[in-house]
Amino acid sequence: MRAYEIIQKKRDGHKLSEIEIKFLVDGFVNGSVPDYQMAAFLMAVFFRHMDDEETFTLTNVMKNSGDIMDLSAIEGVKVDKHSTGGVGDKTTLILAPLVSSCGVKVAKLSGRGLGHTGGTIDKLESIPGFKTSMKRDQWIEQVNKIGVAIAGQTANLVPADKKIYALRDVTATVDEISLIASSIMSKKLAGGSDAFVLDVKVGSGAFMKSIEEASRLSKIMVSIAKLAGRKATAMITDMDQPLGCKIGNSLEVIEAVEILKNKGPSDLMELTVALASKMIEYGLSIDNEEAVVKVRDSIESGKALGKFEEFVEFQGGDSSFLKDPEKLLHGVKIYSLKSDVNGYMEGMNTEKIGIAAMILGAGRSKKDDEIDFSVGFDFSKKKGDSISVGEEILKVYYNDTNKLEASLEFLNESLIIGDSQPEKTTMIFDIIQ
Amino acid sequence: MRAYEIIQKKRDGHKLSEIEIKFLVDGFVNGSVPDYQMAAFLMAVFFRHMDDEETFTLTNVMKNSGDIMDLSAIEGVKVDKHSTGGVGDKTTLILAPLVSSCGVKVAKLSGRGLGHTGGTIDKLESIPGFKTSMKRDQWIEQVNKIGVAIAGQTANLVPADKKIYALRDVTATVDEISLIASSIMSKKLAGGSDAFVLDVKVGSGAFMKSIEEASRLSKIMVSIAKLAGRKATAMITDMDQPLGCKIGNSLEVIEAVEILKNKGPSDLMELTVALASKMIEYGLSIDNEEAVVKVRDSIESGKALGKFEEFVEFQGGDSSFLKDPEKLLHGVKIYSLKSDVNGYMEGMNTEKIGIAAMILGAGRSKKDDEIDFSVGFDFSKKKGDSISVGEEILKVYYNDTNKLEASLEFLNESLIIGDSQPEKTTMIFDIIQ
Repeated sequence: MRAYEIIQKKRDGHKLSEIEIKFLVDGFVNGSVPDYQMAAFLMAVFFRHMDDEETFTLTNVMKNSGDIMDLSAIEGVKVDKHSTGGVGDKTTLILAPLVSSCGVKVAKLSGRGLGHTGGTIDKLESIPGFKTSMKRDQWIEQVNKIGVAIAGQTANLVPADKKIYALRDVTATVDEISLIASSIMSKKLAGGSDAFVLDVKVGSGAFMKSIEEASRLSKIMVSIAKLAGRKATAMITDMDQPLGCKIGNSLEVIEAVEILKNKGPSDLMELTVALASKMIEYGLSIDNEEAVVKVRDSIESGKALGKFEEFVEFQGGDSSFLKDPEKLLHGVKIYSLKSDVNGYMEGMNTEKIGIAAMILGAGRSKKDDEIDFSVGFDFSKKKGDSISVGEEILKVYYNDTNKLEASLEFLNESLIIGDSQPEKTTMIFDIIQ
Repeated sequence: MRAYEIIQKKRDGHKLSEIEIKFLVDGFVNGSVPDYQMAAFLMAVFFRHMDDEETFTLTNVMKNSGDIMDLSAIEGVKVDKHSTGGVGDKTTLILAPLVSSCGVKVAKLSGRGLGHTGGTIDKLESIPGFKTSMKRDQWIEQVNKIGVAIAGQTANLVPADKKIYALRDVTATVDEISLIASSIMSKKLAGGSDAFVLDVKVGSGAFMKSIEEASRLSKIMVSIAKLAGRKATAMITDMDQPLGCKIGNSLEVIEAVEILKNKGPSDLMELTVALASKMIEYGLSIDNEEAVVKVRDSIESGKALGKFEEFVEFQGGDSSFLKDPEKLLHGVKIYSLKSDVNGYMEGMNTEKIGIAAMILGAGRSKKDDEIDFSVGFDFSKKKGDSISVGEEILKVYYNDTNKLEASLEFLNESLIIGDSQPEKTTMIFDIIQ
């Protein structure tokens, strides 16, 4: 077998066999297939795509390239959640303790990543003392003890995906459904859970720009999970404005706590209940209505908040911020952006808001960039809200005046205030299972 | 500017500017654009193609990557000929002395190449003593003195094409019209001639499998030449059976001499007259009918043969084989393949015949393979000929019995003998200028 023929076969629109996909991916990982052949192959896939079976094979081959988590030492059905990423998405911070407080074990691996803010791991590390690096045994032990643990991904989780993604990133071959699906699902499957709830974001702040695209990605990811003998549901959710009001690492931790205190913005609460109840439905094998009741009870009774406190303390974090959230912000400066017109928030370019957050220092544009945990935004107005002259639209939390100014430029461009009031839409467009 | 954006732009079907193409090609040659990005780009071009203007730009940028021949020291219009390659194509051996004998200067650079037989340079080197490596001054001096010179390509002629072609060759991105056209024409333009006659082969033994494809390639090559201020004509010619009867390095030299002696197969003679007269039409600015007369006169009078003899001797070759062609074959063994059925030669899979020749030792499958000059085929029967039981179809010239056997396997598969007599077709399907 030669890499050349495999590239040619895909280029000409033919279906690849498991042996061919394995030859190429394993060869790329071990160095016998050079990166230029892999790059040509990836571009051929960009144009020709892979069908569900090929995508499943690719996922499996990538999954098998490194460590695979064995969660059999944890009793019960293990449920994992994944989001394709969006601005203000702090749901993992809420779901992990919430779902655990309802009796479903959560053994989660998370990443850092580049973008508008840090990843879940960075957000958690904005809590003083919080540790996310732990040995595998320790991670499982913690789940068995308190029902929840979130650790940073080990270096050897799906190395094939790491290497392939790095190449896709410089060859304009990121935006292809079967490559996106296999990249996500290889990591999910290697994580070892039995069921997955996938939050597929759609809109100006998401990777998927149309519901149709998001639907295709959802279907193929659910299909991969099923072919692997796992359960999965994908929810296609709104990312045409930031999720919740707060964006930034510490600010998102604070907003997550608000939700656990049964406060916080309604869109974030709606999504939280939907995702959490689905996870619990899988975890406890109960119907969704029952799961929703459990979720609401746990939040209203303070059980979920208590679990969060326990979780933070167990991983070494100082939980005193739960009573005094300001503590996480370390005296950051606040700029209040006020409206100079009357009207309605007609739209928000969420991608630009994300860039504005990154410029402020909330995220990394390069791997080695340092994150400023306390900076970010807190929106007082969201899509559909009426706005009067002089009213506050949002607060900017900043530490550097130059960065504030650069950030405001993007921010001003991102907000569309006009005369017509857009209808408020639902958070969840579709559920695919 | 970043290579990433250029890849993405082409991937999305947009037209590239001259600056972008130059950035990418120059960067690839000097090493600042890595091969994996170039590979992804080439695959994007495979799917999205380049228009005439982009293709011309790519041709020019590649041409300018190395030495450009200055032929101004040679008087008159310089005419070059190029063939896209086919089995049994020995026309350059005939045309160079023939056209020169009619008063048009021929300053030709040729290659070796991989494939069923060697390139023109290899064929010439099958003549004992023949030298193809010479300095540029010497080459021009020879053209001025005797009207014709054929030298091996210098190392630094269009290095961009060399590097890009090597990458295309291992990434399944060879078969794309704009890349093929720019590769050919960059070398032609760097060769410095004023006018080009392009022999675009079509059929089972050619790169182009349909007249439509050949026509597209022809049009774009002629367009490139015109945009570069040169003249060009492309002839779309038959390669659904070998050209002439003889295949193999020495055998092709022998058949070229037969044509110059006004003998030899009619298809090869027809193509020779068409190509030669077009070259002379350009070179002497006369009309084609007049040029045809000159060609026929030169062959019939022996002038062309005399020029060949002079040319061979001038480049150090032993011309005694002109009287005794067997001398070139060095006592090679001959196997006569006879028919065991009655019928007609309905078709010939020329690609397989080419492979059979390579297996026999007539060509290289790898760069360092050594060529056996004296092996090859001599067909007694061609498409449309009637065949009786026991009649010879072809002679195989061989030195190694194992290779003979392996070669015969392909050969037997390549010949389709049946009951119906196919019509003999013309050699030239179309002329594009």
